[in-house]
Amino acid sequence: MFVVGSGARHLEDELRALGGGGLNVEIKRFPDGEKYVRVMGSSEEVTVVQSTFAPQDEHLVELILLADALRERGVQKLRAVVPYLAYSRQDRVTKDGEPVSVRAILRAIAVYYDELYVFDLHNPETLRFFPSKAVNLSPAGAIAEYFGKKLGEGVVLAPDKGALMRAKAVAEKLGLEYSHFHKVRISPTEVQMKPVDVDVKGKNVLIVDDIISTGGTMIRAANLLKEMGAKKVFVAATHGVFAEGAIERVSKAVDELAVTNTIPTPVSKISIVPDILKL
Amino acid sequence: MFVVGSGARHLEDELRALGGGGLNVEIKRFPDGEKYVRVMGSSEEVTVVQSTFAPQDEHLVELILLADALRERGVQKLRAVVPYLAYSRQDRVTKDGEPVSVRAILRAIAVYYDELYVFDLHNPETLRFFPSKAVNLSPAGAIAEYFGKKLGEGVVLAPDKGALMRAKAVAEKLGLEYSHFHKVRISPTEVQMKPVDVDVKGKNVLIVDDIISTGGTMIRAANLLKEMGAKKVFVAATHGVFAEGAIERVSKAVDELAVTNTIPTPVSKISIVPDILKL
Repeated sequence: MFVVGSGARHLEDELRALGGGGLNVEIKRFPDGEKYVRVMGSSEEVTVVQSTFAPQDEHLVELILLADALRERGVQKLRAVVPYLAYSRQDRVTKDGEPVSVRAILRAIAVYYDELYVFDLHNPETLRFFPSKAVNLSPAGAIAEYFGKKLGEGVVLAPDKGALMRAKAVAEKLGLEYSHFHKVRISPTEVQMKPVDVDVKGKNVLIVDDIISTGGTMIRAANLLKEMGAKKVFVAATHGVFAEGAIERVSKAVDELAVTNTIPTPVSKISIVPDILKL
Repeated sequence: MFVVGSGARHLEDELRALGGGGLNVEIKRFPDGEKYVRVMGSSEEVTVVQSTFAPQDEHLVELILLADALRERGVQKLRAVVPYLAYSRQDRVTKDGEPVSVRAILRAIAVYYDELYVFDLHNPETLRFFPSKAVNLSPAGAIAEYFGKKLGEGVVLAPDKGALMRAKAVAEKLGLEYSHFHKVRISPTEVQMKPVDVDVKGKNVLIVDDIISTGGTMIRAANLLKEMGAKKVFVAATHGVFAEGAIERVSKAVDELAVTNTIPTPVSKISIVPDILKL
């Protein structure tokens, strides 16, 4: 049985259409700003689907309020599916005195939930902070399916070496070549990018990343690929955490921009719902 | 050592003026909406002061991020002082399927904090959900001090029987008479109130409650007391969770309205900072 929080309302119709049974939920806000949740019905096992994009903190608190209500109803096994996990980029202490914010969030979720499923976590190693079963799901299948035909005999590229596994996963599903960009700092303010060991001339290219925010890297990469003679340039990402104007800027620079629906945006054209239903 | 979150900034100057040493904190928001915190310096024992009025969920998440940063810095003993605890009125299941929201909040705080101090909790019994030391502090001393002279040989009243202990605590500090209002439902829409076993004629009266939101009860009580010949009518509460326009409406109906500074409002004239410093 599924319970859908307000951070996953955009997935609800598809979840139900594909056969995911759900419990109805009432979610409202009291005049003082506190959230009120109520779950109609119960089941022995329940999966709460709640993405935690902005307003992140409200979505997180709702996630634990829903869990409390479900435990109160006697639910034995509680699973959280958090397609986009807030604070996942605050995964290490860069300056003394900083928290590992994602750890704090994972620990708070663990108070109530037996299992946690997230999509394409920025740093999958941080899942060790969740004391019980935690799984990092890959949207590679969904991305490959969406871009497969458009890409043809193209190439899949990661924007940097750290993201190579993501490009590899998509490329392998399509039987395509893959590589990554290499970034060379040529001055304090300038970084030169070039794709490593791959010829893009006359080929379609798909660049895959986990998160797009400003889109600066993607735009530079796309421009470079065009200069190098690439045919069409597509950009895909799991999480569209777009800064103001980023969708327009990236869209202008590439042939198509598409992200998954872990976060609802105008370009969330790739659905992770089938992956949720496989759990 | 104190660390002050953004929900307690309004207490910081007084804390420092009265000798409460503090660690500096940087708190900002990333463009995507996530909070960033950083604590400068460390100490073996740290008390985080953070009130959790609106935006409640942001203040709550900040409370646990600060704790993670402090634990990362090696703090051994962590105390949370939460003058106003969000979700404290959601303390029981009224309809099937509701959470005991305050339980969820207390459990999330307990992940990091060894001790918790709150002021005048709506239902003090809910502190049992905090697995280690949790203390409900009374602002009765501060309220008595603020209204003592103005009240003279007056009477302290609770708006209903459930709030009597609060009025009693203030009255005993001043050596005054105390009682409570009795509410009788005379029709489905009408409730009659009257003070029990006390003569208010010619006397000053202080009505004390934990929370004022709409202020409706206080206004009705004040009007009734005036009709009964009370001299001056004062209203005090611990937490000023005022609805739109409530401060003005209550102020017009009484001789003076004052609440403590667990929540910053234009009438938060009674300070709980000395009580925090006694911990």
